[in-house]
Amino acid sequence: MSRFQELLKDFNSYFSNIRFPDKPEALYGAASHILEDGGKRIRPVLCLLANEMFSPIHPATWKIASAIELFHNFTLIHDDIMDRAPVRRGRPTVHTLYNEPTALLAGDVMLLKVYDLLMESDTAEIKKLVFLLNRTGAEICEGQQLDMEFEKQESVSPADYISMIERKTAVFLAAALQMGAIQGGASPKAQEDLYQFGRNLGLAFQVQDDWLDSFGNPDKFGKERGGDIRSNKKTFLLVHAMEAATGTDRELMLDLLKSDSETKLEQMMALFRRLKVDEAAVKAKNSYMEKAWKHFNRIEVPDERRKPLRELAEYLLNRET
Amino acid sequence: MSRFQELLKDFNSYFSNIRFPDKPEALYGAASHILEDGGKRIRPVLCLLANEMFSPIHPATWKIASAIELFHNFTLIHDDIMDRAPVRRGRPTVHTLYNEPTALLAGDVMLLKVYDLLMESDTAEIKKLVFLLNRTGAEICEGQQLDMEFEKQESVSPADYISMIERKTAVFLAAALQMGAIQGGASPKAQEDLYQFGRNLGLAFQVQDDWLDSFGNPDKFGKERGGDIRSNKKTFLLVHAMEAATGTDRELMLDLLKSDSETKLEQMMALFRRLKVDEAAVKAKNSYMEKAWKHFNRIEVPDERRKPLRELAEYLLNRET
Repeated sequence: MSRFQELLKDFNSYFSNIRFPDKPEALYGAASHILEDGGKRIRPVLCLLANEMFSPIHPATWKIASAIELFHNFTLIHDDIMDRAPVRRGRPTVHTLYNEPTALLAGDVMLLKVYDLLMESDTAEIKKLVFLLNRTGAEICEGQQLDMEFEKQESVSPADYISMIERKTAVFLAAALQMGAIQGGASPKAQEDLYQFGRNLGLAFQVQDDWLDSFGNPDKFGKERGGDIRSNKKTFLLVHAMEAATGTDRELMLDLLKSDSETKLEQMMALFRRLKVDEAAVKAKNSYMEKAWKHFNRIEVPDERRKPLRELAEYLLNRET
Repeated sequence: MSRFQELLKDFNSYFSNIRFPDKPEALYGAASHILEDGGKRIRPVLCLLANEMFSPIHPATWKIASAIELFHNFTLIHDDIMDRAPVRRGRPTVHTLYNEPTALLAGDVMLLKVYDLLMESDTAEIKKLVFLLNRTGAEICEGQQLDMEFEKQESVSPADYISMIERKTAVFLAAALQMGAIQGGASPKAQEDLYQFGRNLGLAFQVQDDWLDSFGNPDKFGKERGGDIRSNKKTFLLVHAMEAATGTDRELMLDLLKSDSETKLEQMMALFRRLKVDEAAVKAKNSYMEKAWKHFNRIEVPDERRKPLRELAEYLLNRET
């Protein structure tokens, strides 16, 4: 078992003790519902691994990692309301099982509990951690706002797309790592390198996610292929294709965006290939990972301290192969 | 000018410097919108007055009072979404002016900023304050959840009604006072007395609010009379009337609840009077105020230190006369 798998196991056991009150039943049942289905728990494990990169895991870090996972679930509950998503991780979303007002409130009480956990951790670094989490949380809200605005816009530039996924996804991985590094007593320089490692890892991960949805092996990826194409989601592939397509390709793309036909998926995939945006995605992912490893490798710790985080990153980036 | 009016003026000037970033425009425009219309700012002034009851206002208390006011506005944005309220303080609500998802996010970024302000205050009492605010926040969410559930129920017991308004309204006044008392260096006993003063004041205030909606002088109260009766809102008056009404009175009440007739308001008011629930409300208000003053008067400070808070409480309780 790799170290990240061990920590995931320990974290899941620690986190299962975090409970909400019993009443009002609907409110706290809604909050508990989303925690019951597990999820990948990547962010808390990143935090724990980052702590351990510099020194043994501080007891407070378990609470901080729990706060991070709760914060993530708070964003999921509210995002699912905004996106009117019926299903998450194979189960009905909170607002589907309860209703929108109760789900909204459940997200709110979850966010309040985040700060309870941070305070209970009694860490000496409380101010740094809260400021970092708050800044990151605001960026996540900004990312979600931009994502919603982009879906209504006719076109989105590749640069704006990257700036959106950076906020919506990447900075939280970065912050989880930095929070662990702060707990581990890392130098400001090492903290920043780990943050940038996480940010670039997050960008690479999201670009890969976009690629996988269209070109991945559905058996290994675990989702049905082409959901993004069917819903015209503005992914890395689509925003680059919209920028690259001219002439008849452009006409075909605009037609496909309006179409519901059975061949939409394969036609759009063929178009993506012709425009080489599939290659562009792989190239972008590799470029972000190159930056990520550059930051990662210059952190001054013995190589064996680096291994568990490297293994987790490699695991995250090789979901299809 | 009474002391509370002076502090309100100073607070408004301090609070007007609290700003959100410029972009994304919709997200932060939505958050700023609700702050522009003022509001009564009762909670932050209670906090400042409570600090001053024990010692000169600590510089950190201004930030803490601002956090309290922001927290209140966060709850208003989300409550208005849940209640589908089109208007607040004479202006369109945030989700009406923007849209529900943006309003939801604006509430979220506002709550994040609450904790920024608390941390920035650099108070030595940070843990106590955050725990108190979080507990109160969870109670407010519980109160809102109960309020929504009550509106769907056929009947609500007077005890359940009180337990709902206690959470939804009263505990926040109590917590604002205790937070100020903590900042002022009050003893735990004085903190608790001030908390109980605020809780009972809040209950009295809400019962009065319910009474005013039906029996107040609309010119002085500032709202159209009878909104609660028209919408069948489960107020102190209605839940007591539902409990007291028997025989033909009960039949009349059930008919009126289904009716939209022009005479609904005066018929329901006559029924309330016949069942003496208007008197019960006045009696309940007085009883809560008696308890409030008992707690208030046993706080061991010189009488002149008590005066400003007493004046504010009296002002809040004499809105109609």
